[in-house]
Amino acid sequence: MATLIRGGTVVDANQTYRADVLCHDSAEGGTIAQIGVDLTAPAGATVIDAGGQYVMPGGIDPHTHMELPFMGTTASDDFYSGTAAGLAGGTTSIIDFVIPSPRQPLMAAFNEWRGWAEKAASDYAFHVAVTWWDESVHRDMGTLVHEHGVSSFKHFMAYKNAIMADDEILVNSFARALELGALPTVHAENGELVFQLQRQLLARGFTGPEAHPLSRPPEVEGEAANRAIRIAQVLGVPVYIVHVSAKDALDAVIRAHSEGQRVFAEVLAGHLVIDESVYRDTDWGRAAAHVMSPPFRSKEHRDALWRGLQGGHLHTTATDHCVFCASQKAMGREDFTKIPNGCGGVEDRMSILWHHGVNTGRLTPNEFVRVTSTNAAQIFNLYPRKGAVEVGADADLVVWDPQATRTISVKTHHQNVDFNVFEGMNVQGVATHTLSRGHVAWANGDLRAQRGAGRYLKRPPNPAYFEAIRVANRLKAVEPVAR
Amino acid sequence: MATLIRGGTVVDANQTYRADVLCHDSAEGGTIAQIGVDLTAPAGATVIDAGGQYVMPGGIDPHTHMELPFMGTTASDDFYSGTAAGLAGGTTSIIDFVIPSPRQPLMAAFNEWRGWAEKAASDYAFHVAVTWWDESVHRDMGTLVHEHGVSSFKHFMAYKNAIMADDEILVNSFARALELGALPTVHAENGELVFQLQRQLLARGFTGPEAHPLSRPPEVEGEAANRAIRIAQVLGVPVYIVHVSAKDALDAVIRAHSEGQRVFAEVLAGHLVIDESVYRDTDWGRAAAHVMSPPFRSKEHRDALWRGLQGGHLHTTATDHCVFCASQKAMGREDFTKIPNGCGGVEDRMSILWHHGVNTGRLTPNEFVRVTSTNAAQIFNLYPRKGAVEVGADADLVVWDPQATRTISVKTHHQNVDFNVFEGMNVQGVATHTLSRGHVAWANGDLRAQRGAGRYLKRPPNPAYFEAIRVANRLKAVEPVAR
Amino acid sequence: MATLIRGGTVVDANQTYRADVLCHDSAEGGTIAQIGVDLTAPAGATVIDAGGQYVMPGGIDPHTHMELPFMGTTASDDFYSGTAAGLAGGTTSIIDFVIPSPRQPLMAAFNEWRGWAEKAASDYAFHVAVTWWDESVHRDMGTLVHEHGVSSFKHFMAYKNAIMADDEILVNSFARALELGALPTVHAENGELVFQLQRQLLARGFTGPEAHPLSRPPEVEGEAANRAIRIAQVLGVPVYIVHVSAKDALDAVIRAHSEGQRVFAEVLAGHLVIDESVYRDTDWGRAAAHVMSPPFRSKEHRDALWRGLQGGHLHTTATDHCVFCASQKAMGREDFTKIPNGCGGVEDRMSILWHHGVNTGRLTPNEFVRVTSTNAAQIFNLYPRKGAVEVGADADLVVWDPQATRTISVKTHHQNVDFNVFEGMNVQGVATHTLSRGHVAWANGDLRAQRGAGRYLKRPPNPAYFEAIRVANRLKAVEPVAR
Amino acid sequence: MATLIRGGTVVDANQTYRADVLCHDSAEGGTIAQIGVDLTAPAGATVIDAGGQYVMPGGIDPHTHMELPFMGTTASDDFYSGTAAGLAGGTTSIIDFVIPSPRQPLMAAFNEWRGWAEKAASDYAFHVAVTWWDESVHRDMGTLVHEHGVSSFKHFMAYKNAIMADDEILVNSFARALELGALPTVHAENGELVFQLQRQLLARGFTGPEAHPLSRPPEVEGEAANRAIRIAQVLGVPVYIVHVSAKDALDAVIRAHSEGQRVFAEVLAGHLVIDESVYRDTDWGRAAAHVMSPPFRSKEHRDALWRGLQGGHLHTTATDHCVFCASQKAMGREDFTKIPNGCGGVEDRMSILWHHGVNTGRLTPNEFVRVTSTNAAQIFNLYPRKGAVEVGADADLVVWDPQATRTISVKTHHQNVDFNVFEGMNVQGVATHTLSRGHVAWANGDLRAQRGAGRYLKRPPNPAYFEAIRVANRLKAVEPVAR
Repeated sequence: MATLIRGGTVVDANQTYRADVLCHDSAEGGTIAQIGVDLTAPAGATVIDAGGQYVMPGGIDPHTHMELPFMGTTASDDFYSGTAAGLAGGTTSIIDFVIPSPRQPLMAAFNEWRGWAEKAASDYAFHVAVTWWDESVHRDMGTLVHEHGVSSFKHFMAYKNAIMADDEILVNSFARALELGALPTVHAENGELVFQLQRQLLARGFTGPEAHPLSRPPEVEGEAANRAIRIAQVLGVPVYIVHVSAKDALDAVIRAHSEGQRVFAEVLAGHLVIDESVYRDTDWGRAAAHVMSPPFRSKEHRDALWRGLQGGHLHTTATDHCVFCASQKAMGREDFTKIPNGCGGVEDRMSILWHHGVNTGRLTPNEFVRVTSTNAAQIFNLYPRKGAVEVGADADLVVWDPQATRTISVKTHHQNVDFNVFEGMNVQGVATHTLSRGHVAWANGDLRAQRGAGRYLKRPPNPAYFEAIRVANRLKAVEPVAR
Repeated sequence: MATLIRGGTVVDANQTYRADVLCHDSAEGGTIAQIGVDLTAPAGATVIDAGGQYVMPGGIDPHTHMELPFMGTTASDDFYSGTAAGLAGGTTSIIDFVIPSPRQPLMAAFNEWRGWAEKAASDYAFHVAVTWWDESVHRDMGTLVHEHGVSSFKHFMAYKNAIMADDEILVNSFARALELGALPTVHAENGELVFQLQRQLLARGFTGPEAHPLSRPPEVEGEAANRAIRIAQVLGVPVYIVHVSAKDALDAVIRAHSEGQRVFAEVLAGHLVIDESVYRDTDWGRAAAHVMSPPFRSKEHRDALWRGLQGGHLHTTATDHCVFCASQKAMGREDFTKIPNGCGGVEDRMSILWHHGVNTGRLTPNEFVRVTSTNAAQIFNLYPRKGAVEVGADADLVVWDPQATRTISVKTHHQNVDFNVFEGMNVQGVATHTLSRGHVAWANGDLRAQRGAGRYLKRPPNPAYFEAIRVANRLKAVEPVAR
Repeated sequence: MATLIRGGTVVDANQTYRADVLCHDSAEGGTIAQIGVDLTAPAGATVIDAGGQYVMPGGIDPHTHMELPFMGTTASDDFYSGTAAGLAGGTTSIIDFVIPSPRQPLMAAFNEWRGWAEKAASDYAFHVAVTWWDESVHRDMGTLVHEHGVSSFKHFMAYKNAIMADDEILVNSFARALELGALPTVHAENGELVFQLQRQLLARGFTGPEAHPLSRPPEVEGEAANRAIRIAQVLGVPVYIVHVSAKDALDAVIRAHSEGQRVFAEVLAGHLVIDESVYRDTDWGRAAAHVMSPPFRSKEHRDALWRGLQGGHLHTTATDHCVFCASQKAMGREDFTKIPNGCGGVEDRMSILWHHGVNTGRLTPNEFVRVTSTNAAQIFNLYPRKGAVEVGADADLVVWDPQATRTISVKTHHQNVDFNVFEGMNVQGVATHTLSRGHVAWANGDLRAQRGAGRYLKRPPNPAYFEAIRVANRLKAVEPVAR
Repeated sequence: MATLIRGGTVVDANQTYRADVLCHDSAEGGTIAQIGVDLTAPAGATVIDAGGQYVMPGGIDPHTHMELPFMGTTASDDFYSGTAAGLAGGTTSIIDFVIPSPRQPLMAAFNEWRGWAEKAASDYAFHVAVTWWDESVHRDMGTLVHEHGVSSFKHFMAYKNAIMADDEILVNSFARALELGALPTVHAENGELVFQLQRQLLARGFTGPEAHPLSRPPEVEGEAANRAIRIAQVLGVPVYIVHVSAKDALDAVIRAHSEGQRVFAEVLAGHLVIDESVYRDTDWGRAAAHVMSPPFRSKEHRDALWRGLQGGHLHTTATDHCVFCASQKAMGREDFTKIPNGCGGVEDRMSILWHHGVNTGRLTPNEFVRVTSTNAAQIFNLYPRKGAVEVGADADLVVWDPQATRTISVKTHHQNVDFNVFEGMNVQGVATHTLSRGHVAWANGDLRAQRGAGRYLKRPPNPAYFEAIRVANRLKAVEPVAR
């Protein structure tokens, strides 16, 4: 059954115009069939009245961790509940992470995650983490790229004695990614400093969540971001910095852009609006509920992040959605370093960005589309299948009412967790309908997500920017001196 | 008679894909009729074989001065010869400048220029310069915006005792532009310093063209760019810096972007590839032929400009096409300050950018489209009529052969001037066909430009970024204290 | 009668060591006679017990305005009361400003100020402001340098329609200063923007002091600082920026230092510790009492200023001491632009810097000496007569008790004004004794300032840094091309 | 036998003045006895005629490696020949390095080096390198500080699989240095990247010296410098970056200064004047003779380094003097990674800095003294015993003829090596006499260095800047939240 979105204003990354959008049913491919003024609804078509509303590409959240096994427990949103919540908020694709344990073969981990993800309600893809190094990792990276459509690899510079990638892993993996046309991404925090600060803090009697940000100050992130960027620069490979939370890291990105380097950077909805003071909440549970890495920062950093989005130095917005219930967070009751790290937001990201971004004049609606969808699609090579409102593209769309308001709350959210970091925030700008490959999965508060309807997205290597990098690298070559 | 471009690969600002493009004849609107694989040519249609070639939006040169009366003479390319030369190189629109003399009513100057431009072979628009200030200027700016589709105003910070705008003019005009939703643009050079340096140099016996760059060092440009940007920041208005030639000015732009400010910047093809050493040529004529402001710079600056394009800090490429023949340049034989300022390039910009940008890996083909066409269209509110390959857009297209080469020379160029600053440069990447609103104006070396076929482009005020600025300005307001 | 300071620890710009200091009486030259361990007091010598205390060069305040005629009234501290208050706080020299009215001959103004200053209790020197330009100004600058020991000239980039120096004045005067080996200094605020913002604010109903900072935002200062610095760079002359209050201006200074340029910068004690919120005080009088230009800023700027002092980018600390009583401030009751601009601090600067600088670990005691005294002496060519603890130097000394505390208050201060911007601030670090050329002018709360005891300090041109600049300028010269 | 330096002009870090200087004989302490105009020579005193010359503190080279065992051989200048050569050039103190092999106890290495150094002709001190980590290293650092006057520790971020310090060592050692009041110093190059690039280059057939700089590009240094600085920032400890050779590293230093951080930085004479093109010399021996790390750089970097000295961002000048003869360099004939790293310069540094620094206007003579002597003395806690011209200071002095010239050459130098990187350079500014603790060790070309006359300099911990750091760290502390 086709769907006609009638009377709306299409907003994509580049333009804004009045048009109706006709979508094929998901059973018939779920793509956009037609865009035009005054389209006729085919027989039996569902018609959505988008009068006074915007029709935009569905959101892409390039950073989620559904049902992640982490720090001795498992994230409470699984691939179904998490993607369903995303659909309720206008997000139609996620890119999640396969995280092998050290010494675990990458392919084994990949297959495990693929199994878990089959229940997803929206489309999804995977980054794969490189947490250790030997020849098999080198080989499996090739297999993943060539046979499984994984074209980005993640590196954690933090979490010493667990999944931390030291310089040796970074350098080898980045060099391999270049060969493969794949994009290395990094979680930028200096794990050695975090480890030292954690020890110092525990020794000084700091056991509570207020010690969490003290153990991960902005400089720790800035250092690591700069290191990853410089390693990428020396090797001649692009790089993507996940969850930039601190001015220090953003400055490293801006410096790289000033030098023309191809560095991409992501910011989380939470880091844009939540203050570090949450960690000094006298209610342990509320404080612990905000424990994630990097931590929330002060206003100075938030202001810088918004400027980063405005100035084009931050390209994508994500959530690092990785939720744990109060009973899970309680594992760190006596030792803040044992609190499972993670917060939610996959459902609320779009509203947060619109309310605090568009309604404040920081972003134009077109820029909103870029940073919530199109840029992620281009960087991670899903474009124009995702991230565009075009005939032939997947009908992953959100109908957006810029006048409607809602109050974010754990009481009403669809995420499977007992806390919401945006609790009580009143936002103007709401998804009234979300289409996932043509299926109306959310309509005026009615969540019609389908377990298992999501498909795995293969992402080929060598996005457009890679060819340019290869040409540039080749031209830089010099010859040995004949003597 | 329709035209079918068959077998090519469409490259626009965002994507690259195989498709044929069918264009309405200019008599039937000259827009793009259809884009798709294996389109059928309508009866009688011209068919262009674009196999192995790219089909891209025609270039927009946002900075030209055709038949400009300047420094006691008139630029030798008129609106016909200049736009025809542009078509030969793949450029399908220009934005030229109306420059009133001090005390000349803006409307009088505008009407004069409109008359001159009627002979243009491609479409064109106008910026209008604000060279003085009183209430009538304030009023005429409104008339130009509301009735004539002029939505950008130019300010010369150089040329003391002629058209120089001092702070008082800048502040008043920028504030007026904000009211009108129009974009202020600036030629950024501190005119007082230039004047002082010219006097010092003449006093020290410097009369030749080698004194020209000495009188306009990079700091002079950096200072003025920073000043214009800060004035815009304080008043809450966007600003566009024309012909950024020096790292100093680019750095001011990058700083503004780091702060999230809406500053747009342009670079000239010539400044990207020509070295300052030209001014020390012992042949006076060759040296004088390169006299333009700002002058050509050293490699350090050129490298920075390329990085600026790569990093997204420079948005548009232009030429400041303003040509004078040797006999005109000779007016300054005894005094370099009397050499008519200006160089050419409207015909060669696209090849220069492709050869030195795409072929070196600095730019992807999509980025090439952005900086030669789409960004200018968006900033100056011509998009998507111009700058896009879309059904309904004007069929201003270039068919581009990335393998073909040509040697730039005054002997073969179509510009009406006896010198070419790119003389002898061998470039790979050539326009084989250019369509101007559906008319094939250039085909494999055959220039079919039509005198007067170009139309004046009205550019409405309030492009997308303006609404965001207005919201942001409004939210910043504070209230008086009640006492 | 000689004075022996016994048992103290000498702190100068470079070292800290135990020594007694013997000073000649002012009648015998007032210089330092001897420095050493366990000196013997000459017969009849006054002995000061400095046990547990520091002996440091007396403070130099390089920016004061005693009895300044300004905005229709006259500053209430005259040269006697102002310098006496300085002595009470450990400041032994001031550099004040001669400010000619536009068209007033510089020499006439200079003579007028010299007369007023004869009543000073401590030594003093003058900067002379260049507020207009013609050949006589050019000539008088020479006279002042060659015959009167004035080797620094001030330029106000603000105060349109009054004493504002436009680019033409700046460029001519800076060029002249270079010839003379004199240092140009600037008050950096874009006067045209201030004027425009004042008009806009008044039009919007802002009449109170809260409009004052809104009319002079940080960007206005940053722009002007950058402009002055670039003009100096182009002309090859050093430059000194007075009262840097905003991060924007400091950043311009830091950029210049990164380029190796000789730029000096000053910060006021008040700008380091007072918050902009004072202007929104609901008590008009208190708000108006803080009106000075540039205005007080937010914490972000204060933090930056402290970093600037720590990093060596700000060299001197001053006060811009220029006080007006409540009855004078009331002139602007209906219009904030008419409130006489100025605040005090000559008495409190040293304590403010010690308490907030040394006691917080931002500055070492040696650095304190540099930024309160030695640097000013070196920059303005008074060193080592002033700013040093050396045999033969003037015995301008302060004995400083780092443990003692005092509460700053209008009730106890010696300044002739009915307000103190530091009111109620408790500071640790107090001058117990101040010697002015050997005379004990302040002793444990007893002010023994002598009307007229201060001497005018001639400051020769060509301080050490000037020769380096001249060599560098000369080496940059190129030759005309022979053709 | 005392020495009177008569008729000269004293230049120290702060002032320039006419004075004679009388020095005690080394047997009588070797300190400065008197400074004054027209001093009388004691009976039997040696009199040096310093007419037309400058009398300055002898140079301190804070970075040398005499008789270093390295890469399978030993540096050819031993402590005697190296310090004697220093005296011939005006350098009167060196700070050399004790470099324990991994797992070698620090105290054992220290004692070994102390033995070697007994033959030194001038005074000397030691930094000790931390090349590995365990509890014994932690303990030995304390012993060195408390009992042996070692107050600075070195860390090599390069030389993987040898003496490279990874993040774990850096973090632990920096934290220990803070406890001890000692200064951590770093050789900043990312050793993992160097290792990877070396392998890539060898694999591509690069075996000669031209591969050396390719394996250590500027970014490799910039990354490491930034990392060390950020680690120091997080731990709240000062840090000193040795041999900054690249703009990238300097920029990291400048950023730190902008934030008020206490970062000190050193530049080598060679890096200021030698071009990277030396590595492409077709004579293998000449190319190999320049192999040192970091390598020589391009003009862009050299220009930046000079600006760094001018702007106060680089504090000291050194040489990293570590010489190997042609036969030793030949060890790397087939593999550039096996060429012993090191170049000379201890004899020539002062002339290089004067000629290229003072004679070009980049530095004033006082600044020359700061960067060749006084700053090193203050940073490494030798001041005012060294680095000052003061009564009581060691009579380590150089009499400097600013008019005299000499041509640097291996044929005339006193260094024990068969190559000079400054070969053929004609410099103006020459040491005519050098005094080492009162002994005239160099007089008009006559080298009178005495084997074993040099003394080991104990450097106590806690230089002045440390107390400030401690206060600042203490004030930053927050408290745990009571829950």
